[in-house]
Amino acid sequence: MSLTRIHNMSISLDGFATGEPQSADAPFGHAGERLHEWMFATRFWGAGGTEGVDDAFAARHNIGCGAEIMGANKFGPPGWQDDSDWKGWWGPNPPFHTPTFVLTHHPRPPIEMAGGTTFHFLQASPAEALATAAEAAGGLDVRIGGGATVVRDFVAAGLVDHMHLVQVPIVLGRGVRVWDGLEALEDSYDIEAVSSPSGVTHLTFTRRVGDGA
Amino acid sequence: MSLTRIHNMSISLDGFATGEPQSADAPFGHAGERLHEWMFATRFWGAGGTEGVDDAFAARHNIGCGAEIMGANKFGPPGWQDDSDWKGWWGPNPPFHTPTFVLTHHPRPPIEMAGGTTFHFLQASPAEALATAAEAAGGLDVRIGGGATVVRDFVAAGLVDHMHLVQVPIVLGRGVRVWDGLEALEDSYDIEAVSSPSGVTHLTFTRRVGDGA
Repeated sequence: MSLTRIHNMSISLDGFATGEPQSADAPFGHAGERLHEWMFATRFWGAGGTEGVDDAFAARHNIGCGAEIMGANKFGPPGWQDDSDWKGWWGPNPPFHTPTFVLTHHPRPPIEMAGGTTFHFLQASPAEALATAAEAAGGLDVRIGGGATVVRDFVAAGLVDHMHLVQVPIVLGRGVRVWDGLEALEDSYDIEAVSSPSGVTHLTFTRRVGDGA
Repeated sequence: MSLTRIHNMSISLDGFATGEPQSADAPFGHAGERLHEWMFATRFWGAGGTEGVDDAFAARHNIGCGAEIMGANKFGPPGWQDDSDWKGWWGPNPPFHTPTFVLTHHPRPPIEMAGGTTFHFLQASPAEALATAAEAAGGLDVRIGGGATVVRDFVAAGLVDHMHLVQVPIVLGRGVRVWDGLEALEDSYDIEAVSSPSGVTHLTFTRRVGDGA
């Protein structure tokens, strides 16, 4: 059965998945790159990287996923909807390599990129977007790519089978918090915590058997 | 040198050290006992308990501390100030065994209990309370006993040398959050995370040398 998964969603100790303000120069606001340094150090990210627990978790991002859904705030800085030439942060060959659905109130025609990524623009509820993405995934899993508000929306809607958060030992104080509205998540998920020598802690949430959507 | 320490401060994944509403029947509100089950299972708490990493951390609570400072919300349920017979939650022999300073806007005369605990009631700033407690501690360390608002106040005032938080895999959604106002804590503290087979993650914050108050 096709699953809905979240991977490598990095948060601060106080639960913020991004700082503020977000801009073209600072996609994660005052968090800078600090939420993702653990990932940049892995072999998943580049040759010569580490191959320990951080890499083991990070590499699952690509395995078995046939589509991604992301929020408008992940696709571009505030205002990208007004720039008809904007094609995402990632250059001509984005790291998704599958159909990728961008949730936006301003849909536009699809953009076909190199390497198998095609950006589709959807105005849809989480359940509707998931149905569309699952069909495009051709039997593979669907990844919810973030940001935090999109993750929250899909989890709150009961649509997520597996979630991997990475807690980074910084206190951001402000930004977008992943936990808001997710009270009692432990009732539906088995939760594991694994701390890494790099200083981060991997949190996995696996939906309990019988607790399907 | 005498240190100021925080131990066994349990928080949810979303950072709440207590649920709500707090009452005589539910000192931690809707959190119930879930934030502290990891500790109840240790030998520190009772004979026959575990002796792994949870116990190693828990037992440091008592070692080398000559005084405790706690907030009014730890000493009793809302309204205890109106009950002249209230002597805390802990019965005739409280587990502190040292002078224990309760911060309150309604000071009253000290209460001498069995086992070495004497409750003193102070209306004072964090720095003033710490000076008083440090003198009473006779060269030993001072423990900041919580709750979350008192912990936040002392950390924000730059008065804490070591803090041990225990992150429990539940999402409370509401209550009193320990992180508020502590942005950039990583600039002043070395932070370690150690996950335990019990499911909790121990977070330690050790003030960097040269970053004294």
